[in-house]
Amino acid sequence: MSESRLPTPHYLIDKSRLLPNLEKMAWLRETSGAKSLLALKCFAIWSVFDFMAEYMDGTTSSSLYEVRLGREKFPGETHAYSVAWADHEIDEVVGHCDKIIFNTLGQLQRFDAASRAKVRGLRVNPGVSSSSFDLADPARPFSRLGEHDPVAIERALGEIGDISGFMFHNNCENGRLERFGEMLDHIEQRFGHLIRRMDWISLGGGIAFTHPDYPLAAFAERLKRFAGEYGVQVYLEPGEAAVANSTTLEVTVLDTLHNGKDLAIVDSSIEAHMLDLLVYRYSGRIEPNQGPHEWMVCGKSCLAGDIVGEFRFDQPLEVGDRLSIEDAAAYTMVKKNWFNGVKMPAIAVRELDGQVRLVRDFGYQDFASALS
Amino acid sequence: MSESRLPTPHYLIDKSRLLPNLEKMAWLRETSGAKSLLALKCFAIWSVFDFMAEYMDGTTSSSLYEVRLGREKFPGETHAYSVAWADHEIDEVVGHCDKIIFNTLGQLQRFDAASRAKVRGLRVNPGVSSSSFDLADPARPFSRLGEHDPVAIERALGEIGDISGFMFHNNCENGRLERFGEMLDHIEQRFGHLIRRMDWISLGGGIAFTHPDYPLAAFAERLKRFAGEYGVQVYLEPGEAAVANSTTLEVTVLDTLHNGKDLAIVDSSIEAHMLDLLVYRYSGRIEPNQGPHEWMVCGKSCLAGDIVGEFRFDQPLEVGDRLSIEDAAAYTMVKKNWFNGVKMPAIAVRELDGQVRLVRDFGYQDFASALS
Repeated sequence: MSESRLPTPHYLIDKSRLLPNLEKMAWLRETSGAKSLLALKCFAIWSVFDFMAEYMDGTTSSSLYEVRLGREKFPGETHAYSVAWADHEIDEVVGHCDKIIFNTLGQLQRFDAASRAKVRGLRVNPGVSSSSFDLADPARPFSRLGEHDPVAIERALGEIGDISGFMFHNNCENGRLERFGEMLDHIEQRFGHLIRRMDWISLGGGIAFTHPDYPLAAFAERLKRFAGEYGVQVYLEPGEAAVANSTTLEVTVLDTLHNGKDLAIVDSSIEAHMLDLLVYRYSGRIEPNQGPHEWMVCGKSCLAGDIVGEFRFDQPLEVGDRLSIEDAAAYTMVKKNWFNGVKMPAIAVRELDGQVRLVRDFGYQDFASALS
Repeated sequence: MSESRLPTPHYLIDKSRLLPNLEKMAWLRETSGAKSLLALKCFAIWSVFDFMAEYMDGTTSSSLYEVRLGREKFPGETHAYSVAWADHEIDEVVGHCDKIIFNTLGQLQRFDAASRAKVRGLRVNPGVSSSSFDLADPARPFSRLGEHDPVAIERALGEIGDISGFMFHNNCENGRLERFGEMLDHIEQRFGHLIRRMDWISLGGGIAFTHPDYPLAAFAERLKRFAGEYGVQVYLEPGEAAVANSTTLEVTVLDTLHNGKDLAIVDSSIEAHMLDLLVYRYSGRIEPNQGPHEWMVCGKSCLAGDIVGEFRFDQPLEVGDRLSIEDAAAYTMVKKNWFNGVKMPAIAVRELDGQVRLVRDFGYQDFASALS
């Protein structure tokens, strides 16, 4: 259970738990040359950007607002990518970024003149992925994510020119280096002749290389070999790998029920505060998850399926108990919403000296002004 | 396609399309005596509350913030319900509401003294529902939504007293009066002897009684019979029924792809702006959905499954085309979020005279301050 004494609910980002991930990314750059850019779509709490920037090389993005946030708040390189840019935003995007990556040749052509002053890249879809969820699979049938056809890409390179890099993003929660390697082999086979003409290649995110069990040295070796073979600067775009295991959602038990099972209702909601548990039907994680008492921990929204998961405890839960839900950094705060008007969790940072600092709280006025 | 010339994306609430729902609720009250309270969890755009309040009787809620919004913005009765109240909020809840409804006997006991000044009710779970989605089924196994056992409820009524109403909420997108009637029969059978001791009964939301095909007169008759039999004031808590078919999400095509299918990418995202399409794997709706050209309309987030649906058009879609996604009122604006930093849709109201009025826009500062 939590040591933070701030009122619940709040997300608690612990710098000492963030640090091992950051050190691995710095080590990887040192060893392989690959640079790591934080994927803001996954985590965008700018209060810890200065800290992260000591170990990482910049940010990548999915929209104008993310590009701008990366430029304003995160020292280092700012990569601009979006599935589609709008006419009215392209000049601002170009103004904020170091590199701009287009999702399609159509977008590249449309914004050719507007983007010429910047280093430019193209997203390429290799048609393979590591995703087990159709929803999140960039290589799903009819995927709109990137250009698929090497012939069309080669033709366009001749016509447009000034494309110096590709972005491949086809991993998704991939914890197996072997699978990563197979897919990189496939990419080299299909697109190697084009990669050779590039200066830089982003291999995207979704690679769980900061996990304690991941063979990091072998991964570094594979990246270094790839970079050497093609003469390219490699980028990675870690989201979850950058922030894994660093953050908890701190909650309090508001009610207990005994209803065939023992249930505890807490002052949060998965739909509002940890949306992926709902979308992907995951269970949350509460540690150490040991003891004789099994409880279902539920959110307080009206949703019947607002369930964090079932966990074991030493003692029966009681009203007022505090619980820490793990893995609360990736794709949580960036998706939080005001469903049911449930109090949005505050955001707090535990500094390396153990002090907990509240960086943002949300109240009724935030709720009312999110509507109108 | 849209007539509104505001920049996209924006939600467009059309009062002339809201009106038929409102008139049906007013007619239902006139005919059956049943009052309708807007369920703020579904729709909470307070810019149109004064208009809705001419036809409805007040609001019901799922949290302190919704109670307060109902009290401050919606003329009429304010019902306070939440799956669980916290100690620190109960006094404020009681201060804002006309009635307070507890989810469990445990919560009622805990806040017995704090809530005595108000009309009080208890949520009762009849163990049957009309939901076809486990996620949204209040009668799912081990449901935490309400008290299940008539014996325990009767015992508590003797001990605590001062409970004058029950809330049953077991319908969910129920468009069949027959099914509603069967479930109400079941409720009467199991809980009739307790209902007889009450002054008011809420039958919750989830009843599609404003739909053009719904047998509204027979529904009114059934409600009137129930109210007469037990001598109770009946409440309904429409959410979707109150706002169905009133609102569109106005978007613009940013890119087109031809990728085995014809794809159009628009300046919105289902995960960020119409979340239920993702959670429940629904297709969106674009009218008239006729013509020789079939296109898949996709959002611009990084999510591979960010797909509004496949629709037919008279002409091939082109960059710059405006589209109107229907059914964009219920459970959309209350759940919108900043995923991917995609521009949050503005909120606009089309008045009865046809004038479109922008009531809220969202920009970069809103995005950045939602993080920290």
